[in-house]
Amino acid sequence: MNQSNCMVAQSGGPTTAINASLAGVISGVMESGKYDICYGAINGILGILNERYLNLSEMMKEDGSLARLRVTPAMYLGSCRHKLPNYKDDDSPYVYIFNQFARLNIKAFFYIGGNDSMDTVLKLSDYATKINSDIRIIGIPKTIDNDLCMIDHTPGFGSAAKYIASTMLEIAHDTFIYAVKSVTIVEIMGRDAGWLTAASALARNRYNTAPHFIYLPEVAFNKEQFLNDIREKLKTLNNVIVAVSEGIRDENGDYITASKAVADQFGHQQLSGAGKALEFLVKENIGVKVRSIEINVLQRCAAHMSSQTDLDEAFALGRKAVSLAEEGVTASMVTLERTSNTPYTVSYDHAPIRGIANEAKSIPREWINDAGNDILPQLYDYLRPLIQGEVSVQYKDGIPVYMPVPHLKPQI
Amino acid sequence: MNQSNCMVAQSGGPTTAINASLAGVISGVMESGKYDICYGAINGILGILNERYLNLSEMMKEDGSLARLRVTPAMYLGSCRHKLPNYKDDDSPYVYIFNQFARLNIKAFFYIGGNDSMDTVLKLSDYATKINSDIRIIGIPKTIDNDLCMIDHTPGFGSAAKYIASTMLEIAHDTFIYAVKSVTIVEIMGRDAGWLTAASALARNRYNTAPHFIYLPEVAFNKEQFLNDIREKLKTLNNVIVAVSEGIRDENGDYITASKAVADQFGHQQLSGAGKALEFLVKENIGVKVRSIEINVLQRCAAHMSSQTDLDEAFALGRKAVSLAEEGVTASMVTLERTSNTPYTVSYDHAPIRGIANEAKSIPREWINDAGNDILPQLYDYLRPLIQGEVSVQYKDGIPVYMPVPHLKPQI
Repeated sequence: MNQSNCMVAQSGGPTTAINASLAGVISGVMESGKYDICYGAINGILGILNERYLNLSEMMKEDGSLARLRVTPAMYLGSCRHKLPNYKDDDSPYVYIFNQFARLNIKAFFYIGGNDSMDTVLKLSDYATKINSDIRIIGIPKTIDNDLCMIDHTPGFGSAAKYIASTMLEIAHDTFIYAVKSVTIVEIMGRDAGWLTAASALARNRYNTAPHFIYLPEVAFNKEQFLNDIREKLKTLNNVIVAVSEGIRDENGDYITASKAVADQFGHQQLSGAGKALEFLVKENIGVKVRSIEINVLQRCAAHMSSQTDLDEAFALGRKAVSLAEEGVTASMVTLERTSNTPYTVSYDHAPIRGIANEAKSIPREWINDAGNDILPQLYDYLRPLIQGEVSVQYKDGIPVYMPVPHLKPQI
Repeated sequence: MNQSNCMVAQSGGPTTAINASLAGVISGVMESGKYDICYGAINGILGILNERYLNLSEMMKEDGSLARLRVTPAMYLGSCRHKLPNYKDDDSPYVYIFNQFARLNIKAFFYIGGNDSMDTVLKLSDYATKINSDIRIIGIPKTIDNDLCMIDHTPGFGSAAKYIASTMLEIAHDTFIYAVKSVTIVEIMGRDAGWLTAASALARNRYNTAPHFIYLPEVAFNKEQFLNDIREKLKTLNNVIVAVSEGIRDENGDYITASKAVADQFGHQQLSGAGKALEFLVKENIGVKVRSIEINVLQRCAAHMSSQTDLDEAFALGRKAVSLAEEGVTASMVTLERTSNTPYTVSYDHAPIRGIANEAKSIPREWINDAGNDILPQLYDYLRPLIQGEVSVQYKDGIPVYMPVPHLKPQI
C-alpha cells in the first residue's frame, strides 16, 4: 500500500510560538491513523522548489524533542519571503510543487505563517482546485503583529506582548532612578496595527504608571499634540515614558521616521526610526534628557519569556490542522475563537482562506481614548489573558537550551 | 543610650544586582548587635544634601520583603550622578553631610556604586580623616561594566553577561531562518572595557557559532579589517552576526559612532551609534541585508534573567560591608577574590578605597586573539562561572513582581 504522508513548512517573520505550532503538527501526525511521515520543507515554500526536506517524524521521535521544540524561538525549519506568481501568469512553480507532493506521497500540506504566507496557502488552494487535486492545504496562523483577520488573536502575539509588558516594567524601574527630568521613548514593532505597542500598557501596576502615553498606527500622529502631551506630563512627573509603534503615520499617511523607507517584495515599507524621530523632536523642542530604545527583534525571539497560554494555543492549532486535514478540510486556515473572557476559554475551528489573506486587522478605534494617546479598559481586558503563564525553559551553563538549528541541510 | 544607626545609598547606573547588595546591607544591620536602624538616602549622596531618607529597617521587616528587593532591578533608593567638590576648595557639602550623620546618629555609611561612586567614598573618607570622625565609610561595588580595580569582577556584571549571552543566542535563532546573506550587528554596553561584549561569546554552543566576530574597546578598530572579516565570513556562512562594544575606537582613539558625542559631568562621552556606524559601513561597502540591534538599557535592567551567582555575591558583599564596619574598617571598598575556578569559589575581603576610585580595568590583551576580533579560552573560563544559576522571579498577571518603587518620597 502507498504511504500517505504530509508536509509542513514555516514562513514570514519569526515568533516564539511558531515552533509550538510545528510541534503540534508533528504531534498530530504521530498520533494520526491516516498519515505516516511528517516531512518538513526547509525555508518555506522554497524548500519544495529546492527539494530540501527533513523527516520530522524520524528526527522528533526521541523523548523530550517535541517539548524542547515547543519553546524554541524562530523557525526551526527556516523561513522565506517568497511570493508565488498568479498561476494564470506562470504555473511552473505550481507544477513543480505538486510533482513533489506526488513523489513524496504528500496528502496534506500545512503552512505556518502570517499574512503573506496565507497568500501562498490561497494560491496553492486555488491551483489544487484547478487541477482537481485532493491534497489538503491548510494554513496555521502566526504573527507577533496580531493583524490577521478571522481569528481572535494570532499565535506569537501573546508571547511578544508578555515580553514587551515585562520589559516596559523593567525599563520603568531603570528610568525612575534619577531625579532629573527625562523622556524615554520605547519603539515597538507593528507596521500597520498597534496591538504590540498597546500591550506595553500591561506593565502598569499599583506603583508604575508607565507607559504614560501610547501612540499607535491606528491614530494619525500629530507632532504638536505629542510635544504638548510630553510638556504637560513633565510638569507632574520627572520621568516620562512613551510607547510608540514603528508604524505611526501623520495625517497624510506618511511614516514618522528618522530614516528613509524602502519597499520590500510585498510592497511593505521597511521601517526604522519612529523612536529616533520622537527622540529628536523632544531634544529639539523640549530639551530635557531623552533616550530612545528600540526593542527590535528581541520582542519576537525572547523565548525564555514566552506566554504559556500562547504556546499552548499555538500547539493546539497545529494539532487541529492535522485533524481538519484528516476530516477532508482544505483551502482553510485554522482559527481560534474566545468563547469566554472570565474565565478565559477558547475554541478551535477553521475559516476559508479566501477573505483572510492580504487583509489586516487593526485595533478598533473605540478601544483607544479620544486623545489618541492611550488605550481604554476594553483593550486591557482583551490583552491580559494572552500573556498569562510562564514557560519552563531549561538552562545549561547559564543560557537557555533550545532545539539546535538543523543547519538547514537537506536530509532526504 | 544613644542610638547607633547606619545609612546606605546607591549611585551611578542601574544593574540588576544593586538591590541585592542593598538587601545584604539591610540584612546585615537587622542581625547586627551594633547598629539599630538602617536609613536609606534617596538619590545617592543628594539624598543627604536634600534630607530625604527612608527607614529601611522599618520598611523591610515584613517577611519576604528582602527576598523581593533582592531580585528587583535598578536602584530601589534612586540614584544620582553627583560629583562632590574637593573639600579643600569647598567643604560646605561635607559639613552638611556630617551634620546630618550626627543628627541621625549615623556611625557607618555604605555607598553602593561604580567608579564615580567610589570617588565619593574616597572624598568622604578623606574628609572624615581630616575632621577625626569615627564614622565608617565603606564602598560596595556594582557596575555592569566590570571595570573596577581590586576585585575579580563586579556585582551586576554576571547578570548583564547572562542576559547578553542568552539574548545573543535568541538573536542567532532569529537570524538563521533566512537563506539570504545577511549581517547582524549587536551593539553592547561598555564604554572603556569590553567585558560585556566579550560575554556574548558564551552564546556559542554545539550548533551556534555566533557571534562570529567580537570587537572590543581594548583593540583599535580598523574599518578595512572589519570589512574584510565580514566579506570572508560571508563566503562560508549566510548569516554573519557581530558583537560590538559601544566604546570601540580607531587607532587615533576616536570613537566609531554614527552620532555626535557629548561629555557628561564626569568627562565621559555619552555614546550611541557604534552599531549604526558598522551597519552603514556594511551597507555602503558590502551591500548585503544588514541590521543593527542596540541591546540598550535592557542588558542592565532585565532582572528576570539575573544570574543567581551574581545576586548571591552582591548580597554577600552587602553583608560583608556591615561586618567590616562593625570591626572598625573604614575608607575601604568590599572586594571579592576568586579562590578557585573549578569548582568556582570566592572569598570576601576589602581594599583601601584609594587606588580604586577613578581607575578602570580592561580586558588583558592576552585574552583577546591576535587579529583583535575574538576572545581566547582564558576569557571564557573567567566569564562562564559568573552567569550560572537562574533566579526565581515571581509573576503576577503575566509580568514579574518586583519591589514597588517607593515613589522617592521622604519618609522621616
